[in-house]
Amino acid sequence: MRMLDIIEKKKRGGILNREEIAFFVQGYTRDQVPDYQMAALLMAIWFRGLEDREVLDLTLEMAGSGETLDLSDIRGVVVDKHSTGGVGDKTSLVVAPMVASLGVPVAKMSGRGLGHTGGTIDKLEAIPGFSAALDKKAMVDTINRVHMAIAGQTANLAPADKKMYALRDVTGTVDQTGLIASSVMSKKIASGAQVIVLDVKTGSGAFMKREEDALELAARMVSIGKGLGRTTAALVTDMNQPLGEAVGNSLEVVEAIRTLQGKGPKDLYELCLALGSQMLLGAGRTGDPGEAKKLLQEAVASGAALATFKAFVEAQGGDGAYVDNPGLFPEARHVAEVPAPRSGYVQAIQTEEVGVSAMLLGGGRETKDSPIDLAVGLLVRKKVGDFVEQGEPLVRIHASGRERLEAVAARLTEAYTIGDAPVQRLQLVKKVLT
Amino acid sequence: MRMLDIIEKKKRGGILNREEIAFFVQGYTRDQVPDYQMAALLMAIWFRGLEDREVLDLTLEMAGSGETLDLSDIRGVVVDKHSTGGVGDKTSLVVAPMVASLGVPVAKMSGRGLGHTGGTIDKLEAIPGFSAALDKKAMVDTINRVHMAIAGQTANLAPADKKMYALRDVTGTVDQTGLIASSVMSKKIASGAQVIVLDVKTGSGAFMKREEDALELAARMVSIGKGLGRTTAALVTDMNQPLGEAVGNSLEVVEAIRTLQGKGPKDLYELCLALGSQMLLGAGRTGDPGEAKKLLQEAVASGAALATFKAFVEAQGGDGAYVDNPGLFPEARHVAEVPAPRSGYVQAIQTEEVGVSAMLLGGGRETKDSPIDLAVGLLVRKKVGDFVEQGEPLVRIHASGRERLEAVAARLTEAYTIGDAPVQRLQLVKKVLT
Repeated sequence: MRMLDIIEKKKRGGILNREEIAFFVQGYTRDQVPDYQMAALLMAIWFRGLEDREVLDLTLEMAGSGETLDLSDIRGVVVDKHSTGGVGDKTSLVVAPMVASLGVPVAKMSGRGLGHTGGTIDKLEAIPGFSAALDKKAMVDTINRVHMAIAGQTANLAPADKKMYALRDVTGTVDQTGLIASSVMSKKIASGAQVIVLDVKTGSGAFMKREEDALELAARMVSIGKGLGRTTAALVTDMNQPLGEAVGNSLEVVEAIRTLQGKGPKDLYELCLALGSQMLLGAGRTGDPGEAKKLLQEAVASGAALATFKAFVEAQGGDGAYVDNPGLFPEARHVAEVPAPRSGYVQAIQTEEVGVSAMLLGGGRETKDSPIDLAVGLLVRKKVGDFVEQGEPLVRIHASGRERLEAVAARLTEAYTIGDAPVQRLQLVKKVLT
Repeated sequence: MRMLDIIEKKKRGGILNREEIAFFVQGYTRDQVPDYQMAALLMAIWFRGLEDREVLDLTLEMAGSGETLDLSDIRGVVVDKHSTGGVGDKTSLVVAPMVASLGVPVAKMSGRGLGHTGGTIDKLEAIPGFSAALDKKAMVDTINRVHMAIAGQTANLAPADKKMYALRDVTGTVDQTGLIASSVMSKKIASGAQVIVLDVKTGSGAFMKREEDALELAARMVSIGKGLGRTTAALVTDMNQPLGEAVGNSLEVVEAIRTLQGKGPKDLYELCLALGSQMLLGAGRTGDPGEAKKLLQEAVASGAALATFKAFVEAQGGDGAYVDNPGLFPEARHVAEVPAPRSGYVQAIQTEEVGVSAMLLGGGRETKDSPIDLAVGLLVRKKVGDFVEQGEPLVRIHASGRERLEAVAARLTEAYTIGDAPVQRLQLVKKVLT
């Protein structure tokens, strides 16, 4: 078999078979297929697409390209949750303890963030002592003890995907749903959970700007998960405004704690209930969606979810006092409000701009090696549909320096569109696919 | 400017401007743009195509990526001739001396062959002593003395094209007319001739199987040549059967000499008259096509063309005795005929198979470093439209070993389709574009 023939076949619109897909995935992982041939194939795939069968084979081959986690020592049906990423998305910090507090084991593999703010692990590292460096045994032990763990992705899960993603990133071949779906799912499959719940974001702050693209991606991922024997659900959710209020690492942890205390933003809580319900249903904790939601609400009301979060933080080395008293998190040096330039209804928020603003404050990474400032960030006070008086705060900025603060304030003013006409609030959960 | 943005632009169907094209051509030549990004761009170009303006800019940038030959010391309007390559194509060996004998300087840059048989230079090296290793000064001197020279391409003509072509060859991006046109023309432009006459082959033995593709390529090359101030003509010619009879290095030289003696195959002579006429018209030797043809016929009849060929061979170090007496060329050890399996009219010849057969005999290169056997080859005795009796020879094989001979004989039998219905002879020159 020759790589050139595989490129030609896809270029002409052919359907690649399992052997051909295995050939290029394994060959590329082992440095036997050069970058330039892989780049040509990826671009041909961008134009010709991938059929479901090809995506399934690609996922399996990438999942099998390295280690796979065997989680069978965990008691219960193990659940994983994944988000395609958005601005202010601290959902995992809330929904994982909600579900875990009900006895359903949650094993979440997470990466470090690249972009607006840190990833889930960066956020958790705002808690002194917290570490996501768990090996498989520590992960299994932690979950058996406190029903959840969040671990940094070990180097050798789906190495083919890692190498292919790095190439896609520099060759203009990221935005292809079959490739995205197999990339996400290969890591989930290799991570070993039996139940996978996906949060696919769409809108101005998401990678998938168009809802139809998000729907297609969600459908493909559910189809892969099921095709490979995992209980899989996907929610397509709105990212046309930041989720909750906080954007920034420790600010988001504080908001997650407030939500677990029953005092968080409504939209974040609503999304956690929707995702958590799918996690409970998938794990067989209950068969009734209404019952699932009620169980989750009770877990928050009773304090069980918050207690699980604290136990999880401590189990991974973090200082539980920060959970009890979020006032311990260090504050950024400079805090200022961005005032509304006029009165009216918030028509739209350029959400990506809000994310970029948080990154400019120092809360996100531009490159893999950028350090991040855990204290800086934003609190989004007005959302789409809110009425605002001229001069009333739109966003509160937490910055480490005055100059950055002013640059970001101007940017955020631009990100808001305010007009006279009343505007409907955005529907958060657009579709649930199971 | 970033390569990734250029890839994205072309991927989305955008038209690249001069600065963008300069960026990737220069960057790639200087190893600042990596192979994998170039491969992704080339595949995006395969799908999206290139507009005339882009092809012109690409040609200019590639031509300017290395040295350009200044042929202004040559007396007269310098003509170059190029063929896209076919089976049995020894046209340059005939038409160049025909034209040169009429006082029009012919400066041909030629490569070594990769494929069926050797290139023009490999063929000429069948003459003991002949060398194509001319520097610019030697080339100019030779042309001023004998009106023609055939030189091996120096390393530094259009190095961008050389590097890009090597990449296209292994990434499935060879077959794109804009890329082919700019590749051919960048070398022609850098070679410095004022008049460029192109022979674009189409059919079962050509790279361009479909006539419409050959027409498009011809039109694009003529448009580039004119756009860059060169007098340019292109003939689209048939390659659904070998040109002339001989396929193989010394066999082709012998056939070229016979044609210059007025005793060659009709189709080869016809093509030389057609190409030569365009060369004379382009150089302004005459403005009348009928007159051009007559001049060429006279050059052959008078022996002037043959004398020019001999003078050229000797000027480049070759033994002129071989031109006077082609019997001096060494014969292959084994000669055998392939008999017709039945009586009837030759309906079609799978010309590529004929070329592959010549290569299998040892007359062509599979890789850049393969040695070639100058004596082996084929003489095609029956062409499309000919009537043949069962057992009558279709092809004569000249081989160095018995085993190869038998394998090739079987292959050649298969390459012929013989049927009862009379068949029209193939039209050789399909279109002339100026």
